[in-house]
Amino acid sequence: MSDPIDPVALTADLVRCPSITPTEGGALVLLERLLSDGGFDCTRVDRGDTSNLYARWGRKGANRTFGFNGHTDVVPLGNEADWTVAPFGAEIRDGYLYGRGATDMKSGVAAFAAAALDFVAETPPDGAVVLAITGDEEGDATDGTVALLDWMADQNEAMSVCLVGEPTCPDVMGEAMKIGRRGSLTAWLTVRGTQGHAAYPHRANNPIPAMARLVDRLSSHVLDKGTDHFDPSTLAVVTIDTGNPATNVIPAACATTVNVRFNDAHSSQDIITWMQAEVARISWEFGVEVDSKIKVSGESFLTPPGDLSELVAAAVMAETGVTPVLSTSGGTSDARFVKDHCPVVEFGLVGKTMHQVDERVAVEQINQLKAIYKRILTDYFA
Amino acid sequence: MSDPIDPVALTADLVRCPSITPTEGGALVLLERLLSDGGFDCTRVDRGDTSNLYARWGRKGANRTFGFNGHTDVVPLGNEADWTVAPFGAEIRDGYLYGRGATDMKSGVAAFAAAALDFVAETPPDGAVVLAITGDEEGDATDGTVALLDWMADQNEAMSVCLVGEPTCPDVMGEAMKIGRRGSLTAWLTVRGTQGHAAYPHRANNPIPAMARLVDRLSSHVLDKGTDHFDPSTLAVVTIDTGNPATNVIPAACATTVNVRFNDAHSSQDIITWMQAEVARISWEFGVEVDSKIKVSGESFLTPPGDLSELVAAAVMAETGVTPVLSTSGGTSDARFVKDHCPVVEFGLVGKTMHQVDERVAVEQINQLKAIYKRILTDYFA
Repeated sequence: MSDPIDPVALTADLVRCPSITPTEGGALVLLERLLSDGGFDCTRVDRGDTSNLYARWGRKGANRTFGFNGHTDVVPLGNEADWTVAPFGAEIRDGYLYGRGATDMKSGVAAFAAAALDFVAETPPDGAVVLAITGDEEGDATDGTVALLDWMADQNEAMSVCLVGEPTCPDVMGEAMKIGRRGSLTAWLTVRGTQGHAAYPHRANNPIPAMARLVDRLSSHVLDKGTDHFDPSTLAVVTIDTGNPATNVIPAACATTVNVRFNDAHSSQDIITWMQAEVARISWEFGVEVDSKIKVSGESFLTPPGDLSELVAAAVMAETGVTPVLSTSGGTSDARFVKDHCPVVEFGLVGKTMHQVDERVAVEQINQLKAIYKRILTDYFA
Repeated sequence: MSDPIDPVALTADLVRCPSITPTEGGALVLLERLLSDGGFDCTRVDRGDTSNLYARWGRKGANRTFGFNGHTDVVPLGNEADWTVAPFGAEIRDGYLYGRGATDMKSGVAAFAAAALDFVAETPPDGAVVLAITGDEEGDATDGTVALLDWMADQNEAMSVCLVGEPTCPDVMGEAMKIGRRGSLTAWLTVRGTQGHAAYPHRANNPIPAMARLVDRLSSHVLDKGTDHFDPSTLAVVTIDTGNPATNVIPAACATTVNVRFNDAHSSQDIITWMQAEVARISWEFGVEVDSKIKVSGESFLTPPGDLSELVAAAVMAETGVTPVLSTSGGTSDARFVKDHCPVVEFGLVGKTMHQVDERVAVEQINQLKAIYKRILTDYFA
């Protein structure tokens, strides 16, 4: 039996790979070598500029296959001069490992890779363990987990359940896991009227009053009051812009951007249908044209509380003494894609410094996270 | 008796003076020489960067003093490459005199200067004729007619009545004169909330819904339904801007600009009081701060139909065969300042090409305008 894998050293090795999306940066090459040495069947699934890694221990088509999902790509450095450490240096100082991706989420990937390698070496299960690791979570996310799932469907590869290792705890290790996420869509709306002189508004058709009424209606609308597992859906109008510097000119057009985060009371299509009805009503009332472009980033997902969430929560409790709340808050994650494949939940460490300068992770939490993931595997295959 | 002054040649001489606000460009020097030679007492009244000319024929304090007001400054050329003639060339082609200021309003100044010179030479009146000519009508208008009126008050100079020679006819010579103008004010309003992440709107305070509701209320409000001599007051929201490129960020502030043209049912203070009440209501309803800056360009003015308008209308009818309508439409003019000094009306030629490239005036209209102004003087002193 080989020595246990040190997840802190592995996190440091991964942080030293400068893998800003979509650059692979050596991170997946490193993992592929390590996992292959540990008996995993590894396949690089690359699409477009993106590199992804699919690693399976055990037989394809096994009755019970536990999957982990995560990413090794990281967001850009921001203003590099603001960092007090080398962003890819993986320096450890006062119990924290520093570097871009330290929290989001190279420590998560290191923890589940280390846990999986140790687990299959120590107690080979009657089943399979899959690691689906992508290099396009922080970018458009079109060639990452989606590409892996497409490839899996094509190859008859499958996971029975999946855990995404993204940071899920706001402040304290173990305090929260995700059993769902809201969906998200963004609409870009442009109201077009007729330009004219501000002294003669009746000869023009000012798009701004139409835009104001539309934004007022969209902002005032209560999408829902929340559901069993979700907070209320939210709509945020994030900008209105005209760019008319002349106080005596009525502009021809006015544009807005609207971001909607919706829970499991809606599909994106429901939201779009409602919004388009409001747009049509404004268009009719004010005699303006409204151009719209809508992008759906993801549908909402919910894995109702049950076997999977109980498995994860019990392992978290056993290792940390904290019972995680079953949360559905936050932005989107790749779980929005995995949910169409199998039941999925998310658990990871404290995400406080993700995307910031001097991103860092408590070394102790990396070890705890590996222990939790290993206990989950043990309990799942027990 | 000297030869009659050719108002077309004088217009051409003035157009050749490149007097873009606040540059004097030689225009007032030229007029000062001409009027002095014709027996006018001339005083240069300069304030700040601006040159103005006050010319009086006859005794100060005369019982009957007829005043003309106009300006020799012109707006910039716009895109000079779009001109098909030299903008300061005063070229005559197919019956039109071309050049910046040809219409607005060097032809008007030339016509009243020529009419006044001829009139006092031919039939010296029992009274005085005043020409108050400014070089700051197209700019901020703070150091032009206002400076002249301040100086006049200081010097005990006065006009019994005044005619502003701005273009007043939309299409046909003689069809309209102004007996009033709407007032104008502009408000710059900035709604300030609290920045945040679009996924957690309850932790931010988005200024945009407050702005949308405010703009909707301001735009929907009926200020009045018009008065005896005025069209309804108008309000135009000319821009709303945020400048937030991030779809996942709720912005901290949102700004708008509102332009109001108000008739004699309101003072600017009425409008400001109403607008500030709406701002306070939004501020309270949405828990936002609203910064406001308001600039009053001018109060409305009305010289009710009577002796002065009848005098001008009769002269227009006699020379053109057209009875002018008594209009109060259009933007602001220096009549908004003169109205505090004496009864004032406006009459001038067709203003179609003012502020445009290839600005031009029908040569025939310059001669007609001089004839009208001369007849007004004759009838006034008869």
